[in-house]
Amino acid sequence: MNAYRSHTCGQLTAADAGNSVRLSGWVHRVRDHGGVLFIDLRDHYGITQVIADSDSPAFPVLERLRAETVIRIDGQVKPRDASLVNPKLPTGEIEVYATGVEVLGPADELPLPVFGDHDYPEETRLAYRFIDLRRESLHDNIMLRSRVVKWLRDRMWDQGFTEFQTPIITASSPEGARDFLVPSRLHPGKFYALPQAPQQFKQLIMVAGFDRYFQIAPCFRDEDPRADRSPTDFYQLDVEMSFVEQEDVFAAIQPVIQGLFEEFGNGRRVDADWPLIPYAESMLKYGTDKPDLRNPIEMQVVSDHFRGSGFGIFAKLLEQDGTEVRAIPAPGGGSRKFADRMNAFAQKEGLPGMGYIFWRKAEGGQTEAAGPIAKALGHEPTEAIRTQLGLGEGDAVFFLGGRPESFEAVAGRARTEIGRELGLIDENQFKFAWIVDFPMYEKTDEGKIDFSHNPFSMPQGGLEALNGDPLAVKGYQYDLACNGYELVSGAIRNHKPEIMFKAFELAGYPASEVEKRFGGMVKAFRYGAPPHGGCAAGIDRIVMLLADEQNIREVIMFPMNQRAEDLMMGAPSEPTNEQLRELRLRVLPKDA
Amino acid sequence: MNAYRSHTCGQLTAADAGNSVRLSGWVHRVRDHGGVLFIDLRDHYGITQVIADSDSPAFPVLERLRAETVIRIDGQVKPRDASLVNPKLPTGEIEVYATGVEVLGPADELPLPVFGDHDYPEETRLAYRFIDLRRESLHDNIMLRSRVVKWLRDRMWDQGFTEFQTPIITASSPEGARDFLVPSRLHPGKFYALPQAPQQFKQLIMVAGFDRYFQIAPCFRDEDPRADRSPTDFYQLDVEMSFVEQEDVFAAIQPVIQGLFEEFGNGRRVDADWPLIPYAESMLKYGTDKPDLRNPIEMQVVSDHFRGSGFGIFAKLLEQDGTEVRAIPAPGGGSRKFADRMNAFAQKEGLPGMGYIFWRKAEGGQTEAAGPIAKALGHEPTEAIRTQLGLGEGDAVFFLGGRPESFEAVAGRARTEIGRELGLIDENQFKFAWIVDFPMYEKTDEGKIDFSHNPFSMPQGGLEALNGDPLAVKGYQYDLACNGYELVSGAIRNHKPEIMFKAFELAGYPASEVEKRFGGMVKAFRYGAPPHGGCAAGIDRIVMLLADEQNIREVIMFPMNQRAEDLMMGAPSEPTNEQLRELRLRVLPKDA
Repeated sequence: MNAYRSHTCGQLTAADAGNSVRLSGWVHRVRDHGGVLFIDLRDHYGITQVIADSDSPAFPVLERLRAETVIRIDGQVKPRDASLVNPKLPTGEIEVYATGVEVLGPADELPLPVFGDHDYPEETRLAYRFIDLRRESLHDNIMLRSRVVKWLRDRMWDQGFTEFQTPIITASSPEGARDFLVPSRLHPGKFYALPQAPQQFKQLIMVAGFDRYFQIAPCFRDEDPRADRSPTDFYQLDVEMSFVEQEDVFAAIQPVIQGLFEEFGNGRRVDADWPLIPYAESMLKYGTDKPDLRNPIEMQVVSDHFRGSGFGIFAKLLEQDGTEVRAIPAPGGGSRKFADRMNAFAQKEGLPGMGYIFWRKAEGGQTEAAGPIAKALGHEPTEAIRTQLGLGEGDAVFFLGGRPESFEAVAGRARTEIGRELGLIDENQFKFAWIVDFPMYEKTDEGKIDFSHNPFSMPQGGLEALNGDPLAVKGYQYDLACNGYELVSGAIRNHKPEIMFKAFELAGYPASEVEKRFGGMVKAFRYGAPPHGGCAAGIDRIVMLLADEQNIREVIMFPMNQRAEDLMMGAPSEPTNEQLRELRLRVLPKDA
Repeated sequence: MNAYRSHTCGQLTAADAGNSVRLSGWVHRVRDHGGVLFIDLRDHYGITQVIADSDSPAFPVLERLRAETVIRIDGQVKPRDASLVNPKLPTGEIEVYATGVEVLGPADELPLPVFGDHDYPEETRLAYRFIDLRRESLHDNIMLRSRVVKWLRDRMWDQGFTEFQTPIITASSPEGARDFLVPSRLHPGKFYALPQAPQQFKQLIMVAGFDRYFQIAPCFRDEDPRADRSPTDFYQLDVEMSFVEQEDVFAAIQPVIQGLFEEFGNGRRVDADWPLIPYAESMLKYGTDKPDLRNPIEMQVVSDHFRGSGFGIFAKLLEQDGTEVRAIPAPGGGSRKFADRMNAFAQKEGLPGMGYIFWRKAEGGQTEAAGPIAKALGHEPTEAIRTQLGLGEGDAVFFLGGRPESFEAVAGRARTEIGRELGLIDENQFKFAWIVDFPMYEKTDEGKIDFSHNPFSMPQGGLEALNGDPLAVKGYQYDLACNGYELVSGAIRNHKPEIMFKAFELAGYPASEVEKRFGGMVKAFRYGAPPHGGCAAGIDRIVMLLADEQNIREVIMFPMNQRAEDLMMGAPSEPTNEQLRELRLRVLPKDA
């Protein structure tokens, strides 16, 4: 027999009654019921109740055990009285009468308890992560994450993809964030970089003739602190395929992601209908490129009803080029109280307010439109708006006007808020959409043309399109939105050097800069590059959604705190002089 | 239909004859047979023969194609004449008559060809890795590596292990090599380190209550160049288990490794009998702790036959404490020519030579012992040696004497050389052994006591043993040897702080140093640590054995060169001033 256990703490049932067993685990809880000790003994697999009375030779040791001590128990399995069976516990039919005990790992007074549901400061939890991880919910999250990763891997292999590991100590692979640098000892003064993503490598893998690549890939970005992301690294399911168009990527990815949510969604409904929504339509209808489609509200343009109307603010606004008025319908929001609340929301968001109309039952029993805009607009335009939006008594509509880019984001948040407030969102489901046709370029605040998303995407229309208005060029670029989050992002790549140079030139990067920053990849494209495309899915985000957690540190085994410190291991720390000397580095004083 | 292909280049058979198909791939080879073009079109899956004559509209494009151009072909599948069927090719029954062609990715003149078996300088191969990887043997190696990793993962899950990813940007985890450092921008002057192995993290995972961990883990070591290892990183199958003794680890690992070699060993025999060989016995019999057991030669101590004998050199030597004479039997090596060759080998290894006896048929037909040692020893001791070693006519024996540590390594190499020269090694099999009972400590050249292998191992006999002679203490520490390589290394860990501090104290590390270097782990051991142990298996080495490659760069997709440079991506490289400023670092001039 193994020195430590014949069974795990999640294994014994009534069928084992009468047997001698050996268990090892942590002392989860000790209760003393008048000379009879009840010990919940816990391991990775479960909890078993151990009992001892003063006749047991183990009693003297057991009665002085501190919580979280690791012990080995020898004992007999006894069926519990029917009245004492715990149906919530797989081992709830039995208990183990202890005849022997050995303390395998003593425990000091705990800085945070494992038993119980108390909240503890995050810094304590991170400094004592090895204790925090014993708590059920965190333990479950970490196991969920492992199973998710395993499931993704299996499904990708099933679909004919092969996993390849790409270098971690490598060259800078600029993806718009800061690199972590690694000084080279053999080449002092030179630095490696940790990859922000395996973007160039996965494209090189396609050029190398491997057809369907994936990787559960660590990505490293030196980020400024933000609550919902790790300040140092994250994991993505990284995918690339050769000889594909956009639809081929969708066809490969949907079964994987949909299947994952079906498997691990804990019974929440998973929508199998994944619409393709052009970026422009998504911005118009939802005010975001990662819409929460559980929220049925769709915004509409209602400019025509306001043009030259009696509502002067919008009428005047619409005289300027590029302006619009958009309506956010609020079915069921037809009360002044609700309208006022949403108006206050808009003010909190920095707007002067949000105009509205709502429809109520008038004293005479008929439906009437209420609010200052209805009055200013007059009956006919108000009715036209109501009809366009399909609203009626008890409903409301909110308006935002101006240049779309100035209010779209707020409109999106207002849509979310309205949906939430009115209970329109079915929390019990996952709804997906591919957002497609992203613009290749955008105008920066300084009026410059820059890439709006991924510079490696193939522009729709190829080289020809790049000779027209850059802001009109769309890319073969796509995101998967789910419940208001971006889960996946990808593109058909630009595999033709001449189109790539032109695309970068439009964004203000001369050929020399492209060669310098993406030299390895551009060189490769000159020796027979296949058309290819792919995507990357954020593992941390997916697990957060599945586990219903808001804080990324709840789904990572050993996370950094927000200041990018590992409080348990004490990182980062001062290097030794010897180390700095070998790297030929000097740390400058603070005021240098 | 997909824009690029209806089938892959490895898919079409006689059953497809008559069909219209679309293929995409690389132009592997073009042959022009008097106005008929034969093009081998290659993709990840295989090669298909495409033909075109001057009637084909595709002809003008096809006849000017450079090798490695990526093209799309439309055409008709035609059965080949029986005489032209190529049975070595899955698609060898058919060819595709091209009716249309599109160039998807043009190719410049190649720096190294894909077709053919020519050797190219490694620097060229690494700089153009994306071309080199298209070559069949490298492509196959990389696919083998992926399948091996996948297989290991599946088998570990099957055995109840869970994969967890441990941090990559973390604290120094000293394992005896140099750390790669990562300067922190948020905490200038402080550095993270890339883990040399997830040693502390996997032990913390056990303390956190997860029971059976594994990881295909990247390990980072800033190594000086050596041909058979990567100068920056390598991958290991990292394993840890709670509540186990040594045998439990063996029982968990053997099925995985044995199964792997059975699956991917390409028909080579895999020995299922894995003996446990104590370290001391392995050093004596094989002169190494990673013996090649395909070689049947076992060395023996033959000191007694030389003590006070007529062979003065050894007789004298044996008067000193701690000396021994060991014999390397060489069955079938019984000729002066062979004995002389081995003597020359010993001299090349820096020894004055290797004494020997060999047995031949004398003129009278009887067996006689030959060589100077036989003469000096006399008949009886020579016969005693022959009998002890089980040798006879046609065999030889070689001797080495002195303090074992001074000649053991050479003896091991001589054993290998003898086995190789005499053809005693069956190349067609894998033979395994667990080497156990490693000494915890050794004496350094300066006479200091230091850890001989892993400082985290539990000493056999616990605290008590540490109060005796340190050099007599063995650890619960083990290696798996296979065909002369160390494939796996592991230990039952020291999970008791008081034993750990004592163990380090003996090696000259005060408690403060232990706290500083392994603080996270030592702290954890105070809050309920389970007995635990595990091991790590070198993935690169395993794949090299399976692929029968000597150079590690043949089994890594994008390897560094031996000077730790990535010639394709241009790493390491100069940082920008902005980057150095953010990190508050200055690079010192060479002569500083």
